[in-house]
Amino acid sequence: MSTLVTGIGELTTNDPELGRMRDAALVLDGDRVAWVGPAAGAPSADERVDVGGRAVLPGWVDSHTHLVFAGDRTEEFESRMAGRPYAAGGIATTVAATRAASDAELEEGLRRHVAEAVAQGTTCLETKTGYGLTVEEELRAARLAARWVDEVTFLGAHLVPPGADADGYLALVSGEMLDAVAPHVRWADVFCEEGAFDEAGSRRVLEAARSRGLGLRVHGNQLGRGPGVRLAVELGAASVDHCTHLSDADVAALAGSGTVATLLPACDLSTRQPLPPARALLDAGAEVALASNCNPGSSYTTSMAFAVTTAVLQMRLTVEEAVRAATAGGARALRRTDVGHLGVGARADVHVLNAPSTTHLAYRPGVPLTWAVWRRGVRER
Amino acid sequence: MSTLVTGIGELTTNDPELGRMRDAALVLDGDRVAWVGPAAGAPSADERVDVGGRAVLPGWVDSHTHLVFAGDRTEEFESRMAGRPYAAGGIATTVAATRAASDAELEEGLRRHVAEAVAQGTTCLETKTGYGLTVEEELRAARLAARWVDEVTFLGAHLVPPGADADGYLALVSGEMLDAVAPHVRWADVFCEEGAFDEAGSRRVLEAARSRGLGLRVHGNQLGRGPGVRLAVELGAASVDHCTHLSDADVAALAGSGTVATLLPACDLSTRQPLPPARALLDAGAEVALASNCNPGSSYTTSMAFAVTTAVLQMRLTVEEAVRAATAGGARALRRTDVGHLGVGARADVHVLNAPSTTHLAYRPGVPLTWAVWRRGVRER
Ligand SMILES: [Zn+2]
Ligand SMILES: [Zn+2]
Repeated sequence: MSTLVTGIGELTTNDPELGRMRDAALVLDGDRVAWVGPAAGAPSADERVDVGGRAVLPGWVDSHTHLVFAGDRTEEFESRMAGRPYAAGGIATTVAATRAASDAELEEGLRRHVAEAVAQGTTCLETKTGYGLTVEEELRAARLAARWVDEVTFLGAHLVPPGADADGYLALVSGEMLDAVAPHVRWADVFCEEGAFDEAGSRRVLEAARSRGLGLRVHGNQLGRGPGVRLAVELGAASVDHCTHLSDADVAALAGSGTVATLLPACDLSTRQPLPPARALLDAGAEVALASNCNPGSSYTTSMAFAVTTAVLQMRLTVEEAVRAATAGGARALRRTDVGHLGVGARADVHVLNAPSTTHLAYRPGVPLTWAVWRRGVRER
Repeated sequence: MSTLVTGIGELTTNDPELGRMRDAALVLDGDRVAWVGPAAGAPSADERVDVGGRAVLPGWVDSHTHLVFAGDRTEEFESRMAGRPYAAGGIATTVAATRAASDAELEEGLRRHVAEAVAQGTTCLETKTGYGLTVEEELRAARLAARWVDEVTFLGAHLVPPGADADGYLALVSGEMLDAVAPHVRWADVFCEEGAFDEAGSRRVLEAARSRGLGLRVHGNQLGRGPGVRLAVELGAASVDHCTHLSDADVAALAGSGTVATLLPACDLSTRQPLPPARALLDAGAEVALASNCNPGSSYTTSMAFAVTTAVLQMRLTVEEAVRAATAGGARALRRTDVGHLGVGARADVHVLNAPSTTHLAYRPGVPLTWAVWRRGVRER
């Protein structure tokens, strides 16, 4: 089954040779892009969809979410916004609710949040474990996640669970727990931050994961400057995420590395942190991704458009840079070449906006602009 | 035809006696709210809609838009975001395109933007003339607008049209043009800002409008401190809009007045202005409204949710304050008692969120949350 998508007013391919095209067409064949070029020269296909001059871009690649969770943290959010202390809050609340939930409940949450993301143009998602924090619960989270998303990351090193011994937990997470979960995930991640895992602990987890053949990711420099970025670059992590508080040396290290700086502006706004220095990173030559960090505590959104809008309006990215970061940047952060672009052979992940150009993503803040979505060649919206 | 809306998890009534309710129900009869109370005590009605525990609130009242326009200013927006000068931009571009458009084209734009707003929960809209700037064109804009929105404002004093003599235009706008347009509008507005109309000119327009029986509104203090707020308060305007740059005296004047401070955060973000001092205004006791300022130049959005989200995440309003500003605040800015609340007798303008509480409007930035909308008792979504 092949589909000719024609009448494309503006096509963002993220392909180095094709770039941004006007009056273009695409042919999707099965789950792949089979042809891209000027509308005038398009081949025929089994079906034809005219998008009426709208803008077409690769589906969003959301390279950072935490979707295996139960429960709600609305009250904690309200307290934070009002500047009131909230004793019962934090990740541990979600850990307790997640452990108490059935598989079916966790899967229903995954299904619902993935569907919500796809309806907004997201076609490739990563998600993390990290609300289980026992061997059994982390394994359960990894297995459930793998049914619903494209990439799964082991985040046993999210925090030391309440009541646990820090050294003992570190041994567990980089030993028995890792061994149990590793066959079910591609990535390992660590929350390298004061109050979570320090440099030595983070290094231990990451080196253990690398020795099991996992790719590395780091939560770093979210709440203050610290060793996260440095460690991620040193160990060749695919991505270091947050990057809210960077030194000049961090920016330079990222620019000279294969590690992507994944920025999570909805999280920064939802926690009253400053927005990350995206402009400095791009100007230095670093690769930047934008992601949602969807989780019930610090960033409960699946909206990649919100990240793009914020990046343009408040972080001084051009629309082209922001869109690239939310598509090709995410793909790079996941070390994938099949998504985040619309060159021939790419996965047929296509996002059509109800607008003539991607500029409208920032020009029209908050207006829902997703008009059509194909994911792996299947029309989802 | 009456409708029982039941299964309401959280009901924001904006009614001083009812406040915020749990497990509530509403009865809509024709275009009015006929009953509000606990679900357990709800009367029967011709039809019944169970909203499954979702949050219900009054439809947004968007008290500041400019929807009678033609053309597009995408390139000007791109240049502004990139920090590049853009010689051809500005309101005059839209004036030229609007004058050149047919009635049908302008109505199609009105229809499309109103429908887009309603689909996002907006049920009462104000819009302004101001892209015509001749007697004939301002009259045309007022007549067309009146077919599509709830409230029409004469903004002949938007700017001195290119090539016109400033004194001559001021005489026209406060004389012949006002006389022609006044029968078709409820409000008059003036852009009181350096580069537009100074204090004396603004006063002349506003006093002339008041003498024709029109209510007054002012665009003021958008780009810097100035006389806008002071003048609006002195003349008893219903609202002064923007309020981005306020002195302590401005805040105090607003607090002691019946003039609403209408804040337009999407505009401030889209023009790289600071966000307005909403917290200071509320703390001083001023009445605050949130509106979209939808227009193709400085704020091309119909999203009231974006204004609410921004107000909570970045302007330190509580969710309750922000929701109130975007509903009851807008009604107050339009001096209407029939909208912006869900007490008995209110217009049946009802917004159902796909969320258990209004907190999700800020907790879930960017996620489209509108689940159902009734406008004047008619289900629109
Ligand atoms: Zn995270
Ligand atoms: Zn305006």
